[in-house]
Amino acid sequence: MSLTLYYASGACSFVPHVLLESLGVPFEPVPVKLHKGEHLGDAYKVINPRSQVPVLVDGGHTITQIVAIVSYLDACHPQALVLPSAPLARARALEILSWMNNSAHITFAHIFMPHKFTDEAAAHAAMKTYNQQQYRAVLQELQALVTAAAANGTGWLDAGQPGALDAYALTLLRWGTMVGINPQDYPALWAFVQRLAQQPVVARVIERERLKLNWYEG
Amino acid sequence: MSLTLYYASGACSFVPHVLLESLGVPFEPVPVKLHKGEHLGDAYKVINPRSQVPVLVDGGHTITQIVAIVSYLDACHPQALVLPSAPLARARALEILSWMNNSAHITFAHIFMPHKFTDEAAAHAAMKTYNQQQYRAVLQELQALVTAAAANGTGWLDAGQPGALDAYALTLLRWGTMVGINPQDYPALWAFVQRLAQQPVVARVIERERLKLNWYEG
Repeated sequence: MSLTLYYASGACSFVPHVLLESLGVPFEPVPVKLHKGEHLGDAYKVINPRSQVPVLVDGGHTITQIVAIVSYLDACHPQALVLPSAPLARARALEILSWMNNSAHITFAHIFMPHKFTDEAAAHAAMKTYNQQQYRAVLQELQALVTAAAANGTGWLDAGQPGALDAYALTLLRWGTMVGINPQDYPALWAFVQRLAQQPVVARVIERERLKLNWYEG
Repeated sequence: MSLTLYYASGACSFVPHVLLESLGVPFEPVPVKLHKGEHLGDAYKVINPRSQVPVLVDGGHTITQIVAIVSYLDACHPQALVLPSAPLARARALEILSWMNNSAHITFAHIFMPHKFTDEAAAHAAMKTYNQQQYRAVLQELQALVTAAAANGTGWLDAGQPGALDAYALTLLRWGTMVGINPQDYPALWAFVQRLAQQPVVARVIERERLKLNWYEG
């Protein structure tokens, strides 16, 4: 089977992008240019009618949603510890991944794309301000998670080598820097992200996506 | 191990509530009264610092997040087909569950609890109106999913008997009726939900949670 990943530079598709690179399986990374509206075009809507990235295509099968893609790669590569195999440890990993996906990510979206949640333009500024405060609490929680990981195990949120959870953590802090948050306000999280970015697997994806890790200009 | 489920009547905790009842394992259902603010109290914050339901406690272990709870119950009961075992079918189920959880659910929250997303009270009415339109698109997608399930398999979204996905579908349509959406606008989905509500397992949970299926008053 041939694997294709549709990703957008800097989007949450960074998560399966790092995971695929970490698994060392051949895959074709296909960039989707959000700033050119490619995700809204008819060609991409055939791939994903919801116009979102990431999408993983395995042979003729299309899989959307980060949790589903991570679980699928885990099922296809049971030795790789994409997710821990013991039920409780697995639940812990999915608990963090779900929270990143349905809470942290959503809070950021309210700062970055408030128009997705209300068409009243006058309300956007207040929504940004409010959710920036919420997002600071998110980053604090995230910092507590990586601090606990550093004390307890491999130093990564993922079970083995850096994977989906670690890549999501990097993405969430990086997004924060794009909306005026100083990563140095979260020193343990920022150190974690910088260390992660230097891992060869992660560095390759950062280079392919041409990512700047820190957009904050204090 | 003794299982405890913390749930709130009518909340998304209905999903693991139905799943546990469907599995036929002994568990203690503990109601959390959101309208009395019990989830915000210190006692509940010891159980879940994020003040959310559902929470599953297995022995001394606390698991939050629907996706994690569903996956955990699947891992503990591999014969029950909580999630399909084949990687692709499993990914499909998690794709739907994730979408329900990170998109459909979130859109509803903007109608039902706009104050969670902006502290500007003047913006709440427009946010409700805008997201009600978005939510109608959600219910249309959901109707397409249950229609496809009826044509292809058991008639349920879940692999075997009614489970997490089916219970979430019921919850999402029921929520719609609470914010002025007529379930009869989605006749196939409404028929699905009514049929589901009559299944003995589901009916027991509806009775325990004292749920009214349709709040719409045309």
